[in-house]
Amino acid sequence: MKPVCVDAMGGDAAPDVIVQAALRAHESGIPIVLCGPEPVLRPMLGGVELPVLHAPHTLGSGGSAWDEIRERPRSSVRVGLEAVRDGLASAFISCGSSGGVLLESVRTLGILKGLARPALAVSIPRGESAPLILLDAGANVDCRAELLVSFAHLGVAWSRALGHQRARVGLLSNGVEPSKGNEAIREALDRLASSPLHVVGQIEPHRAVAGDCDVLVADGLVGNVMLKSMEAAVEIVRAHLTDADADEAEPPSHETLQALSWERHGAAILLGVDGLVLIGHGRSEQAAALYAIQAAHRAAQSDARDQLIAALRDR
Amino acid sequence: MKPVCVDAMGGDAAPDVIVQAALRAHESGIPIVLCGPEPVLRPMLGGVELPVLHAPHTLGSGGSAWDEIRERPRSSVRVGLEAVRDGLASAFISCGSSGGVLLESVRTLGILKGLARPALAVSIPRGESAPLILLDAGANVDCRAELLVSFAHLGVAWSRALGHQRARVGLLSNGVEPSKGNEAIREALDRLASSPLHVVGQIEPHRAVAGDCDVLVADGLVGNVMLKSMEAAVEIVRAHLTDADADEAEPPSHETLQALSWERHGAAILLGVDGLVLIGHGRSEQAAALYAIQAAHRAAQSDARDQLIAALRDR
Repeated sequence: MKPVCVDAMGGDAAPDVIVQAALRAHESGIPIVLCGPEPVLRPMLGGVELPVLHAPHTLGSGGSAWDEIRERPRSSVRVGLEAVRDGLASAFISCGSSGGVLLESVRTLGILKGLARPALAVSIPRGESAPLILLDAGANVDCRAELLVSFAHLGVAWSRALGHQRARVGLLSNGVEPSKGNEAIREALDRLASSPLHVVGQIEPHRAVAGDCDVLVADGLVGNVMLKSMEAAVEIVRAHLTDADADEAEPPSHETLQALSWERHGAAILLGVDGLVLIGHGRSEQAAALYAIQAAHRAAQSDARDQLIAALRDR
Repeated sequence: MKPVCVDAMGGDAAPDVIVQAALRAHESGIPIVLCGPEPVLRPMLGGVELPVLHAPHTLGSGGSAWDEIRERPRSSVRVGLEAVRDGLASAFISCGSSGGVLLESVRTLGILKGLARPALAVSIPRGESAPLILLDAGANVDCRAELLVSFAHLGVAWSRALGHQRARVGLLSNGVEPSKGNEAIREALDRLASSPLHVVGQIEPHRAVAGDCDVLVADGLVGNVMLKSMEAAVEIVRAHLTDADADEAEPPSHETLQALSWERHGAAILLGVDGLVLIGHGRSEQAAALYAIQAAHRAAQSDARDQLIAALRDR
């Protein structure tokens, strides 16, 4: 069983919180290799013999991702992705800047045949039902129709890889009528009409979450705004309910809010690069980082990647 | 005091629920005039002497808004807007299709001088703080930089009309770094840099809601998705908490959820047309429709419109 490579330097609370999460994953039996500056990381392991791939540089979240990766060629992101490329790790997980991870993934691993761009896919929990797969969640903006079409195929392939047949595809929109959406959305729907995919048309956030589709395709800006807007609403509700607790004898159950919060989304997967790459939330605390590592391990243990490649070949 | 003109035929639950809301508004002292087919509406008034502007046609929500208004030239929307244009009503409020209301508003009332397009502005409640003004909430898609810039000016003018000085403007984006957003967003920020507005740059949903800006500018597709995503998250939480109630002795307080739900947003205002036009949610129930009517009345009682025109003239 190959280890999951964890970027110890990615995210607002790195490296402390990420290293703690990696140690807990290791304790639970998930094989782990860390990447980052060894002199910094080694003393944080408390004697646990985790392998560390030394990477002297760290990508920041300021400036352009292009400048970042040019100026820091031996970043933990780069070194971790090379471990995946070279077969030393089954998957790479970072809670760092998605821009840097995206660019380095394309450079290091390459893009699957027939695709123009990879997409970031996120699973939104829906209680008993299968989660909603939203893509692109932020890797690409100003997406033309052609790219939205490829996201639809990628999303359906990923859904099949996760065990769901005949996923219904919706295009995230400002209404459900055929006239709704923007030019790219309407053109993409025209093109998808002749595809073998099950396409339900334009869809609004609440209907997608309620179950009217299984794969929700969006421009990365729009998908990202949907995800972060839902998180914002949940955080507001949680803050209010926590305030309310102080006044109430019987505190309300927060399980629902927990289940809805971004920490439990696990991680986004970068679909379309030739290797398993997951991106956790930059604001990840320890529990969130651990979820992200577990998600990477689960993806690596499944044959998801092979199925994804097969599905793309067959489309 | 001129009456508020209420489109009795707009919205999923029209005319019954809208007429009931109008009757309640009338009882509370708000002067009301209804528009819609008089033979249908008169018997629903239970003898109350509300004036009715007869409109034989009703705009549906199917098909293109252009086709709709061409085929139904004497719709309740058209007749109601003419009442505003002709000085018979202070404001027009409809919970019907925003596309139809938008087009008829531009045709009937015209656009304020110096603007290319009107925008739909929504107030998102933020507890003790002033609400966040989000625009465009769905009237325009594929917005170029120039249009986003005009939304910034409109939003700040509206904020000033509501009594808030020096509103901070953010552009809704998928991250806060200067490289984030799409081409239109980045170009709009370049142009706004030389304006007298207080612009904070790219902003993400949770920071906007938390108070980092007062006016949130977006393409109508993106703004609409933000609003509906927040509503979707709140609806999910509410459904879960309602389920939980059945099992708990002490039900949790739902006031927060109520306050966050779309019903309390009152109504969106169509900024930039030459007259007060408000659009309620198509899914409005009676309480929501009443809120929307009250919002229209409040806007009409203020000198908001004059201030808006003055602010646009001075920019």
